[in-house]
Amino acid sequence: MTQLLITGGAGMIGRKLAERLAAEGSLGGRKIDRMVLQDIVQPAPLAAPFEVGAVAGDFAGAGLADALVASRPDVIFHLAAIPSGGAEADFEAGYRTNLDGTRQLLEAIRQVGDGYKPRLVFTSTIATFGAPFPDAIEDEFHLTPLTSYGTQKAICELLLSDYSRRGFVDGIGIRLPTICVRPGKPNKAASGFFSGIIREPLNGMEAILPVPRTVRHWHASPRAAVGFLVHAATLDLAKLGARRNLTMPGLSVTVAEQIEALRQVAGDAAVALIREEPDETIRSIVAGWPRKFDPKRALDLGFEPDANFEEIIRIYQQDEMGK
Amino acid sequence: MTQLLITGGAGMIGRKLAERLAAEGSLGGRKIDRMVLQDIVQPAPLAAPFEVGAVAGDFAGAGLADALVASRPDVIFHLAAIPSGGAEADFEAGYRTNLDGTRQLLEAIRQVGDGYKPRLVFTSTIATFGAPFPDAIEDEFHLTPLTSYGTQKAICELLLSDYSRRGFVDGIGIRLPTICVRPGKPNKAASGFFSGIIREPLNGMEAILPVPRTVRHWHASPRAAVGFLVHAATLDLAKLGARRNLTMPGLSVTVAEQIEALRQVAGDAAVALIREEPDETIRSIVAGWPRKFDPKRALDLGFEPDANFEEIIRIYQQDEMGK
Repeated sequence: MTQLLITGGAGMIGRKLAERLAAEGSLGGRKIDRMVLQDIVQPAPLAAPFEVGAVAGDFAGAGLADALVASRPDVIFHLAAIPSGGAEADFEAGYRTNLDGTRQLLEAIRQVGDGYKPRLVFTSTIATFGAPFPDAIEDEFHLTPLTSYGTQKAICELLLSDYSRRGFVDGIGIRLPTICVRPGKPNKAASGFFSGIIREPLNGMEAILPVPRTVRHWHASPRAAVGFLVHAATLDLAKLGARRNLTMPGLSVTVAEQIEALRQVAGDAAVALIREEPDETIRSIVAGWPRKFDPKRALDLGFEPDANFEEIIRIYQQDEMGK
Repeated sequence: MTQLLITGGAGMIGRKLAERLAAEGSLGGRKIDRMVLQDIVQPAPLAAPFEVGAVAGDFAGAGLADALVASRPDVIFHLAAIPSGGAEADFEAGYRTNLDGTRQLLEAIRQVGDGYKPRLVFTSTIATFGAPFPDAIEDEFHLTPLTSYGTQKAICELLLSDYSRRGFVDGIGIRLPTICVRPGKPNKAASGFFSGIIREPLNGMEAILPVPRTVRHWHASPRAAVGFLVHAATLDLAKLGARRNLTMPGLSVTVAEQIEALRQVAGDAAVALIREEPDETIRSIVAGWPRKFDPKRALDLGFEPDANFEEIIRIYQQDEMGK
């Protein structure tokens, strides 16, 4: 009997993960019997060859974590979080959901006791790092986040390691690159343009580029991110030792390289839809973000990045545009 | 009107800090008007040229942090903590005092509002690091603690940085070396022998050495540690930027070098009181501890280590034996 739980199961990555698991019907060679999707909003119905439960509720609310682990899920994908902009805008809400919520989940698992020790896959972020950086950030570089969101995720990484070391959970934290191309509408996140300059032109719309083309950043497609989650759920964690948190592999590309890839995939007409409109605020925020990593441990453990940025664009076309 | 607060003010370092401040009557050139010592036990009376308050109470108890900051102390030395062995033995108590207690202090400060932004000097520890290590650990090496105590301190470092970045507090975290020579009786802490092999012979008593003489570790005298705290309280923190936590300078010496220093200071008769009694458990615990750092930032900022291990021994003789 294999049971899964996905917190944040109505989010973009959570939904794609649920859909992949539903399509495959198994995880690491074991047939899935039941999967519960939790989110602050009601997760949409999901067709699957196994039972699917949906729970709408505040992850950090009293008792919800206890209720979610009472059935002893074997694998928990913990994706629920208030994103970076939200955690910066509302200090208390960010700490409540991103720190206290995760701690409640860890405590709920510990309180089950009786030998219960689920695999817990925690989605961390490259926002746990803060400038100044070396050219390529190695696996032993320190975490000095410059946002409350990054701080909360870095704290949860430490909790995950300690709860794992003490034997309460079998945890692994994976620091996701910026997800590109994000599906959906343009948004006001400072990082929004990285996806917007690809997504909008592919859909015949104008896109704004607020930063110089020399800006370099670290990307992974939604499909690669879901692949990381599945691999993390099935990996032999004895290979990790006490260091339970890993920077995921990504692609380090400049905006110019993104645009050239768009030209390769969709031609000059698509590129012509990108309009430069420099925004000093966004430029200075982005200047504090990581540009490149050397994620040796994750690569050695078999985590697989996208092949190149053209592939990232084609994944968007295939998964979101039905091409 | 300069007011100070010392949490953990009855502890070994807290008491020595209070005594130094009482002797000097000022901090960073400003006359001290009032100092409050808080601890779980009643702090002993202290003769000082300013008002001294003493508060006995559980630091993590409801309302204590609020009460302590209500008078708006200008500088807070936050030393209260359950030590490493205790936090490992009692998982819940460690998190409650070392994590929740510190967070309550930060929240109490934030809740005062009204422009209140005290200097907060937080004592962190080299136990925030976990093996494997390079020969000398640089300032950008990551924190992967191997104890709950180290985890809790690393989490508080992250909170301190974020609360400082948000402008709620003017915080600095200092990672203290192992304190040597600790005064007092022999204790069962795994690190106890580092002090015991000096302190017991100086007092004519036999000392047990449970590890090989090749073991290397990172030390600072109590006097140097108090010096770090005072310097951290008066330093211009603009120099720190967003990275508010610093590894303090120490002395990297082997047990053999400690013993040679003892011979220099107290002669062969003292050294003859050290009895080797190998203990595999202690040896393996100590093998996971840092041996040496390259604390460039702290040195550049004017933090001053002990000159050599002979000086560390003489400080014990002067401060504890009245020599």
